[in-house]
Amino acid sequence: MSGQSFSGGLVAALGVIGGKWKPLIIAELHRRPLRFGELRRALPGVSEKVLSQQLREMELDGVVDREVCLSIPPLAVQYSLTELGLTLHESLLPLAAWGEQHELRMLAPSG
Amino acid sequence: MSGQSFSGGLVAALGVIGGKWKPLIIAELHRRPLRFGELRRALPGVSEKVLSQQLREMELDGVVDREVCLSIPPLAVQYSLTELGLTLHESLLPLAAWGEQHELRMLAPSG
Repeated sequence: MSGQSFSGGLVAALGVIGGKWKPLIIAELHRRPLRFGELRRALPGVSEKVLSQQLREMELDGVVDREVCLSIPPLAVQYSLTELGLTLHESLLPLAAWGEQHELRMLAPSG
Repeated sequence: MSGQSFSGGLVAALGVIGGKWKPLIIAELHRRPLRFGELRRALPGVSEKVLSQQLREMELDGVVDREVCLSIPPLAVQYSLTELGLTLHESLLPLAAWGEQHELRMLAPSG
């Protein structure tokens, strides 16, 4: 991968996951599809407005699917990762593992 | 990898690469070590102040090394990726590839 496509691709990907809550939304929806209220409770501190907006952006980017569940009263809206969202999750795994190790290093007393 | 360590690790990693210029700095320094002025010219639009600050943060995170080259007059400061910075670059490759594909999809006429 050339340096140019590396940085271009990375900037594009960070545009998709760059919102404060988006990595957490991906993690939650990777566990299982969630209704709006469930997702909001899973992300303490997020406002309804911000969560709606981040979900809408992720829908436009094709990584989140919004489904109105007519079969489950009361009428509920359920969010899930799309196939594309699953590939995004997959591509984030090495970076998440790196970040976890980095955090442990930063917490460890330096020798 | 659990959902919690996924999102925790990801937030930590995004803290390291989250600055506007940091992905580009990683890409440039992965090519080869660069002096401050060379790096600045490689990133059109970055101010001296912002570039200094982002490099200092990356130094503190242990991903960039700053070396004063006494042997090359005039006295020059050279930046390079550390071993840890190289592992970060490696862990970003799948995400960069995903982003590149995503950009192509967004540009393609939808069928």
